[in-house]
Amino acid sequence: MYPEPIKKFIDIFSKLPSIGPRQATRLAFYLISSGKNSLTEASRAIDDLKNIKICSDCFFTHSNSANICNICMDKSRKKEIIMILEKETDLISIERTKRFTGRYLILGELAKSGTLDSIQKLRLSNLKNFIQKNFGALSESSGQAEEIIIATNPTTYGDLNALIIKKELAGFAKKFSRLGRGIPAGGEIEFADEETLGQALERRN
Amino acid sequence: MYPEPIKKFIDIFSKLPSIGPRQATRLAFYLISSGKNSLTEASRAIDDLKNIKICSDCFFTHSNSANICNICMDKSRKKEIIMILEKETDLISIERTKRFTGRYLILGELAKSGTLDSIQKLRLSNLKNFIQKNFGALSESSGQAEEIIIATNPTTYGDLNALIIKKELAGFAKKFSRLGRGIPAGGEIEFADEETLGQALERRN
Repeated sequence: MYPEPIKKFIDIFSKLPSIGPRQATRLAFYLISSGKNSLTEASRAIDDLKNIKICSDCFFTHSNSANICNICMDKSRKKEIIMILEKETDLISIERTKRFTGRYLILGELAKSGTLDSIQKLRLSNLKNFIQKNFGALSESSGQAEEIIIATNPTTYGDLNALIIKKELAGFAKKFSRLGRGIPAGGEIEFADEETLGQALERRN
Repeated sequence: MYPEPIKKFIDIFSKLPSIGPRQATRLAFYLISSGKNSLTEASRAIDDLKNIKICSDCFFTHSNSANICNICMDKSRKKEIIMILEKETDLISIERTKRFTGRYLILGELAKSGTLDSIQKLRLSNLKNFIQKNFGALSESSGQAEEIIIATNPTTYGDLNALIIKKELAGFAKKFSRLGRGIPAGGEIEFADEETLGQALERRN
């Protein structure tokens, strides 16, 4: 029914996360009506994502000429505290707080089955190598980071996955930690759900 | 924080309808992780929308070498019954019913202010010319189409706009009509809202 280019567009874009055929159709007509310059701009924006590289240390994205990202290049950041995250967007959220001065490891989204896939295992091995390379020479803490923060989500699966990651990295850090949980800032006790309130109680400080 | 190409992507795509910065960010990372071939494919799909043309008769999209769309080219479709629609997607919905064999006029989304913009006025003039050109020679129905179906949505604004369009086209059709309204097929009387049920009563047949 639609002309071929629109069909093709809908076909490709309706497969993207949280875009269905309906939204893809609306997008197609919106883009067409926005004119050829906008089409060029949008098309180029996608094409330019080809220049994105993945940091060989932490697996965050970058577009540097080197192999590592800006955060891993930053010498002022502590090597000995490493936060493990699932997603790039999680990293951005943590960076926005401006309260973390360590490094990261992006693991990719974890399965709900409680198993690590081959890429995730490879990334954890990479971290182990990083730790041994950087802290292997010190006598007391041989091959150990100061702290590894396993920042998976505060959900049942997140907790399960954190345990699996911790087991995988056993011996590679003096301390393992997770992000604090409880009532969100600005939240009201009255409206906090039972589970959140329970955890806020358990982890009171 | 993000590499430049990702920033640019988010900037452009978060301005599209019902895509916010959050979804644009997720899309960026999804596209990056889907690999260079998928990026090329998506980028090209947008670029190819430049080949879309607008039918000079009904203003639907097409990619023919001629100036008119497949529907207007189809000689088996009745010229004398014309349905006026707001959106291309409305046309597709009507076509899917396979029960309409007339022609269309796409008007573009109508303002809630109850006024037609200059493009919409131009399109209605175009329709008047079409009618005069095609039916001007007949003696009895000189310059009149058989029927014009004003298929705006069954809302207060849709009704208001339908009245305005009808006034604008006064004399150019023997009959003006609107789509039927009432309880949707498969719906239950019990759960129909008052307004729908009221209209189903008024328009019983």
